[in-house]
Amino acid sequence: MTTYNLISTDDHVLEPADTWQKRVPAALKERAPKVVSQNGQETWVIDGERHRHVGLSAMAGRKFEEYTVAPVSFAEMRPGCHDPHHRLKDMDQDGVDAQVLFSSLPGFAGQTFLNLNDKKLALACVRAYNDFLVGEFCAVNPQRLIAQCIVPLWDAEAAAQELDRAVQLGHKGLAFSGNPESLGLKPVPDPYWNPLLARVEDLGVPMSIHIASGMAGMGPLSPGAGAPAEVFVTVAPSTNMAIVANIIFSGVPARFPKLNLVSVESGIGWIPYFLERADHVYQRHRFWTKSILTQPPSFYFRRQVYATFLQDKAGIFSRSLIGVDNAMWESDYPHSDTTWPNSQKVVKEMFAGVPKQDQRKITVDNAVKLFHLN
Amino acid sequence: MTTYNLISTDDHVLEPADTWQKRVPAALKERAPKVVSQNGQETWVIDGERHRHVGLSAMAGRKFEEYTVAPVSFAEMRPGCHDPHHRLKDMDQDGVDAQVLFSSLPGFAGQTFLNLNDKKLALACVRAYNDFLVGEFCAVNPQRLIAQCIVPLWDAEAAAQELDRAVQLGHKGLAFSGNPESLGLKPVPDPYWNPLLARVEDLGVPMSIHIASGMAGMGPLSPGAGAPAEVFVTVAPSTNMAIVANIIFSGVPARFPKLNLVSVESGIGWIPYFLERADHVYQRHRFWTKSILTQPPSFYFRRQVYATFLQDKAGIFSRSLIGVDNAMWESDYPHSDTTWPNSQKVVKEMFAGVPKQDQRKITVDNAVKLFHLN
Repeated sequence: MTTYNLISTDDHVLEPADTWQKRVPAALKERAPKVVSQNGQETWVIDGERHRHVGLSAMAGRKFEEYTVAPVSFAEMRPGCHDPHHRLKDMDQDGVDAQVLFSSLPGFAGQTFLNLNDKKLALACVRAYNDFLVGEFCAVNPQRLIAQCIVPLWDAEAAAQELDRAVQLGHKGLAFSGNPESLGLKPVPDPYWNPLLARVEDLGVPMSIHIASGMAGMGPLSPGAGAPAEVFVTVAPSTNMAIVANIIFSGVPARFPKLNLVSVESGIGWIPYFLERADHVYQRHRFWTKSILTQPPSFYFRRQVYATFLQDKAGIFSRSLIGVDNAMWESDYPHSDTTWPNSQKVVKEMFAGVPKQDQRKITVDNAVKLFHLN
Repeated sequence: MTTYNLISTDDHVLEPADTWQKRVPAALKERAPKVVSQNGQETWVIDGERHRHVGLSAMAGRKFEEYTVAPVSFAEMRPGCHDPHHRLKDMDQDGVDAQVLFSSLPGFAGQTFLNLNDKKLALACVRAYNDFLVGEFCAVNPQRLIAQCIVPLWDAEAAAQELDRAVQLGHKGLAFSGNPESLGLKPVPDPYWNPLLARVEDLGVPMSIHIASGMAGMGPLSPGAGAPAEVFVTVAPSTNMAIVANIIFSGVPARFPKLNLVSVESGIGWIPYFLERADHVYQRHRFWTKSILTQPPSFYFRRQVYATFLQDKAGIFSRSLIGVDNAMWESDYPHSDTTWPNSQKVVKEMFAGVPKQDQRKITVDNAVKLFHLN
C-alpha cells in the first residue's frame, strides 16, 4: 500500500522502441511506429514518415548548459525516461510517490495518429499505446504510475468507446486536446464531442488538457517565426488561459456539471487575474454578448477545473484567489522544465510559510480525489 | 496649480467631427476624415472608406444591459466623449484629477492612417490629430488632460521627426503599436525602429503600448471566428504578455536603458506569474536559446516597464511581486470597461487594507514621474 506524500500530476513516458511493434496486428507492423537508425541518429518512422525525439523532452538530469532541441537517442536519455523500473528509482530519489503520465510520440493528446490516412492503422496505434501504458509501464506499480489514455481523435463515438475500454483496463484519466480546432477538428465545446464528454463525465475520470496538445498558433511569436525562442517558452503555458476561457464561456462545464477538466502545465499564477477578469466580463458584457451562462465563470472553474504547475511562487502566494482545491503540483519528468531531482527542495521553498493543509491539498489530496487513487 | 489625488493613465478622446476638416491643407480636405450621415447613421469617411464608431468605445454612463457594439452617433454619446469642457466635468464627478489620452478614429497607435495609399494625406492626418489633441482638447486644461501623440507608422525616421514636433507642442507620451508586425510593419525590436526608439529615449517620454494597438491574432478565438465574444474580451488584455515578453527578450530595454514602456489596459494580475516564468526560462533555457540578455527579464521590466489596470484585485494583492513602482491605475473613460462614474468607490475597495504609500504610487506618483506632470 503506497502512502502518498507528494504526487506529480504531469510526467511523460518516452515510449520504448518496441511499444507498437509488439502489439499491432501483423499486417500493420510495417507501417506502425518503429525506431530506425540512420546516419547514427535514431528516429521514429510511422507509415513512412519520420518523427524525431526532440531533446527537450528528455533532459532530466542534464545541466542547463547542455539542454538541446537536437534529437536525443534512447542511449543518451536517462533510462527512467522509458523504463518503469528506472522511473520508480528516479521517483524515489526525488521523493515523488506517484506520477500521472502523458505520452510522447503520440503527442500529448494522441494527435500524431490523427494524421495517418489509414484510420485502421491509426486506431491500432492508439489502442497499442493505451495497452502498453497500463499493461506494461504502469503495471510495474499501478499505485505509483498513473495511466491516462489517448483516444481516436477523428471520431467522437469511437473515442468514447476507446475511453470505455481504457478505463476498464485501469486508465485513470483522458489526455485530450485543448484546441482540437487547431488540428482540423471541431472545437471542444462543439456538440460533436458530446458523446465523448458525456462518457468522461459518466466514468468520473478527469479530462486533461496539456499545453501544446494542439498547434501553438502564436502567430509571429510561434517557434521559428523570428521572435527569440524564450518568448514562446515563456508564454506557451498560459496560452491555456484562452482555452479554459473558451471551454467555460461556451458552456461545457455548465452542460456537463460533473465533468472535471485539468489545465496541465499551464501554471497557476495567472489564474487569480483570469477569474477576476472573466467574472468582470460576465457581469458587464453578458447582455450584448448574449452569454449562455447562468453563473459567473469562476463558479464553473472552482467546481470543475484544476490546473497544474511546477514552480509558481506567484500562484502559491495568491492560492486563496484560485481555490486551494483547484491547484495540483507536477514535476514534468523528464522534460526540460522538470523539477527532478530537486522536487523536495522546490516544494519546500515554494510552500515556505504556507499552512500544511493547503500544501497537502495541492501536493497530494486534490490528485488523490481527482484520479481516485485510493 | 492642480493637486493630483487620482490620475488615470488610459482614457480616450472621441475626436469631434471637424478635427481633420479644419486642419488639413485645402487640397486634402475632400479625402481627410469627415463625418457623413447616411440612412440616419453617422460614419467617418476617410479617402472614400467608411469607419464606424463602435458602440463599446462610448459606453460611459450606460447601464450594462444597454451596452452595444452597434454604431453610436455623437448625439447618443455623453458629451464628455468629445468635448473637453464636459470631459472635465465628468472627471470632477468621478474624482479623477488627470487623464492620459489615446485616440479613437486613428486606432490606439495611429494605424488607421497607415492604410492610406497617399502618404502625404496620411501624414497630414497624423499631424492634424496631434495638433488637435494638444492644441484644442488638452489646451482647455493641460495639467488635467495629458496628450499622447501618434506618429507616421510607415516611416521610422518620419516618426521620430513627428515625435519631436509633438513633444515640442506639449505631448507627454507616444502611443505606439505593440505588434506592428500584425500591421505589415517590422516588429518593435527590429533595428528598423532604432531611430524612433532612440528619439523616445532621448526625449524622456514613455512609449505606450495599448492593447489592440495592432491586429488581435487570436486565431479561432478572434472576434467573429466562432468562440463566444466573452472569450476575446476576457483574454485580450493579457495578450500584452507575449508582446512585453518579445520586447524584453529581444533586448529593447537592454539596448535603450532609459526607454520607458507602458503596457496599457493589459491588467497587472498576471505579471507576478509572468515575471517568475520569464526569469525561470532565462535561468534554465538561455543556453540553448542563445539569449542576448545579460540580466533576467524581471530586471528590465522593473527598470523600464509599467502596466496599467482598471479593476484588478489580484494584481493589488500581489503588488509586491510586480513592483509598486511599475503599476498605474486607469479609468478607461468612456469605453465599455470604464470605472466612471464609480472610480472613487472602485479604487477605495481595491486598495482596502493597502498601505497609503503603495496606493499613492500606483494611483498618482508613478504617473507624475513617468509623464513629468510637475
